[in-house]
Amino acid sequence: MISVEEALNTILPHIKVLGTERVSLQDSLGAVLAEDIIAPFNVPPLDNSAMDGYAVKAEDLQGASEQNPAKLKISGELPAGYRSKDLLKKGEALRIMTGAPVPEGADTVVMQEDTSANNGSVEVFKEIKLGTNIRRAGEDISEGQVLFKKGTRIRPAHIGSLASIKRAIVSVYQRPRVAILSTGDELVDIDGDNSDGKIVSSNTYSLFALVKENGGIPVNLGIGRDTKEALRGEISGGA
Amino acid sequence: MISVEEALNTILPHIKVLGTERVSLQDSLGAVLAEDIIAPFNVPPLDNSAMDGYAVKAEDLQGASEQNPAKLKISGELPAGYRSKDLLKKGEALRIMTGAPVPEGADTVVMQEDTSANNGSVEVFKEIKLGTNIRRAGEDISEGQVLFKKGTRIRPAHIGSLASIKRAIVSVYQRPRVAILSTGDELVDIDGDNSDGKIVSSNTYSLFALVKENGGIPVNLGIGRDTKEALRGEISGGA
Repeated sequence: MISVEEALNTILPHIKVLGTERVSLQDSLGAVLAEDIIAPFNVPPLDNSAMDGYAVKAEDLQGASEQNPAKLKISGELPAGYRSKDLLKKGEALRIMTGAPVPEGADTVVMQEDTSANNGSVEVFKEIKLGTNIRRAGEDISEGQVLFKKGTRIRPAHIGSLASIKRAIVSVYQRPRVAILSTGDELVDIDGDNSDGKIVSSNTYSLFALVKENGGIPVNLGIGRDTKEALRGEISGGA
Repeated sequence: MISVEEALNTILPHIKVLGTERVSLQDSLGAVLAEDIIAPFNVPPLDNSAMDGYAVKAEDLQGASEQNPAKLKISGELPAGYRSKDLLKKGEALRIMTGAPVPEGADTVVMQEDTSANNGSVEVFKEIKLGTNIRRAGEDISEGQVLFKKGTRIRPAHIGSLASIKRAIVSVYQRPRVAILSTGDELVDIDGDNSDGKIVSSNTYSLFALVKENGGIPVNLGIGRDTKEALRGEISGGA
């Protein structure tokens, strides 16, 4: 009996990595990337709000407190998915939702819980550090970065990241076909006659499933009989 | 924000386990068994040899040694997959291969390395304990045993065992269809226009892959807009 390592060392030098193919992202689960993935743009694409609240200038909140709130004029309201074209001016606050791009002129977001709005203006009850509650452009993925290297096995999380940079198609290595040939005169197939002490070629089926689970394409060649001629025929001709 | 546990406790009471279906063993990987699997026969089916060697009566080897070998008449040769119809008699040895059923009358197998054959007889150079080198009928799986319980998730090793008891078809629970509906006016699909700070609905794709990987059938309903009417339409009508 040879060791698993010896067996691998004997077999693997004869096996070439297959060519590549381009598959849709949904079909790429479990495949191995055949290209480095370079991010074509920033994710998120723009500085955006991490909270529901108000986009402000931090300097406008200097000295603000419960007793002495800063009072700002509400310049508009910005849901996620929309972008303000107006520059935020000193003394203004733009109502903003989580994920919405922070308008030009604003440098900080104050969360709704620290404010009270009334009649077109909003009171803010504390100072906030410049840049608070802003998610920066490129914070998740930055333009030009190598997001995943060639050779990466594609898992669900990779698929999400690839989607976020609009990779609807990816290059992967072709899946190997793996033929399974069991040998032995004592074996019958799962539908064979085992009345005379023969045993079912069960390893064929567990190997079939293992190949499938590991991303290969299993090919069941059945059972080879215990002669050189029979085995030669099975190996050269298939099932 | 509610916790994952709360979310599960809210959703799961509304979800019924699906009905069952009968699938071929090769297609059952990852599915959940909907029946107890009872073994219909022993595996292995008969007492058989664990070694290449000779089937003998242990008593015939009493007192055997290098200096004083037991000499037995070779009654025949039995490859794996064949069965001897003859009763082994006192003073006889049947040449036997690994996996071949042990003939009636024999109670022990002596391995080839401890013997020397010549001219229709074989010398055995040591005593062997009764029952040595015999794999017993039912040693792997015994007739009538519950091999796997209903609810078992089918892995490659289960498939091998199911094959060994000739289960070409198994009852499993139907795989759930899992619809994925993303919501948000800030989202575009992977092929959408993201030039204005919109972001790609990437979670759709990672969830799609996770559902697939966990044995469900993912259905991508696309992106629902942020109105009750739009969401109602998407949920009731599909993509």
